[in-house]
Amino acid sequence: MPQGVLLVISGPSGTGKGTVCGRLRERLPHLAYSVSATTRAPRAGERDGVNYFFLTKEEFQSRIERGEFLEWAEVYGNYYGTPRSYVERMLSSGRDVLLEIDTQGAMQVKANYPAGVFVFLLPPTLEELGRRITCRGTEIEEERRRRLSAARNEIAQIRNYDYLVINDTVQEAVAKIEAILVAERARVKHFSDEELKARLEGQPE
Amino acid sequence: MPQGVLLVISGPSGTGKGTVCGRLRERLPHLAYSVSATTRAPRAGERDGVNYFFLTKEEFQSRIERGEFLEWAEVYGNYYGTPRSYVERMLSSGRDVLLEIDTQGAMQVKANYPAGVFVFLLPPTLEELGRRITCRGTEIEEERRRRLSAARNEIAQIRNYDYLVINDTVQEAVAKIEAILVAERARVKHFSDEELKARLEGQPE
Repeated sequence: MPQGVLLVISGPSGTGKGTVCGRLRERLPHLAYSVSATTRAPRAGERDGVNYFFLTKEEFQSRIERGEFLEWAEVYGNYYGTPRSYVERMLSSGRDVLLEIDTQGAMQVKANYPAGVFVFLLPPTLEELGRRITCRGTEIEEERRRRLSAARNEIAQIRNYDYLVINDTVQEAVAKIEAILVAERARVKHFSDEELKARLEGQPE
Repeated sequence: MPQGVLLVISGPSGTGKGTVCGRLRERLPHLAYSVSATTRAPRAGERDGVNYFFLTKEEFQSRIERGEFLEWAEVYGNYYGTPRSYVERMLSSGRDVLLEIDTQGAMQVKANYPAGVFVFLLPPTLEELGRRITCRGTEIEEERRRRLSAARNEIAQIRNYDYLVINDTVQEAVAKIEAILVAERARVKHFSDEELKARLEGQPE
């Protein structure tokens, strides 16, 4: 059986990753998504192995040292990361895995799993991105400027990605990502020599 | 405007290229297809520039020497070829171009236009290919063996292609190729730096 595809959806803050990935999960129930590990305390109702893998700081750090994360980051004193073993188990069983992640995380994943498929999601224009950030209403002007400036730096890295999907409408963006998944499963390099041979067996003579 | 995609559909004889490409053209009217050049005489009703570009043998040979074909071949004393200028004009105007072609031709196109997207079409198994060849009813056993053996050699070149599409049903094969086209138009490498910049213009500050 061919490996699943590791589909990494990334892009600047305000680009609509969460909405697009939510819709993708609804439409493609076969899509596995990664359960992150974290050192923060579980909140009411959160279950270990479902919402997060909850780890102590010592355990998390020793896993970093053993290279057991596809990516990790420290945010406000807590660690968050994507466990390599969980993702690889899904991929080996033939399931595609969706990772929704910021651009720093995406480039870590690329370094650790170059066979992944990296999609950069963008709003139609930077102007629109500015509007979307503003429209949330909770941001002060300085924070808005900071995020726009960060977005420009992230966009400069676009050549490190395989695909650019413009998020004009959620529906169109989702349709494009679904097409990307179908196409990637048909890539010749996605098949091992053994799989190609197995596909064609049943010699007629 | 981004260049169109040159989509090359190839595969062994008996693989169903003609049916799949016919259906694709029905479903995607924006798809241009190449008009071939030939030295054979026009048949009743055939029009120059529509069915073929009709050329004298001398003219064809001098165009070969000037590198004006993406691929060409001699078949039973007549030349057939795909004019580079016609295809490039279509691509420059942003239209995708479909080329349905045998595997020798496809590899010539790849040498001359490496940015093309190369799809290898195969029946589910070699056994099925054998059946499809036989089912035509017009082939004698020796011809059938010859074509199967040729097919095996062509399949060995599959790593030179970008995509493998298994022609289980015409409908599924066509859906996969349509997805490939959508995905290829979203490839980051499909955009020039100028196009990426233009996409994002409309600076908010």
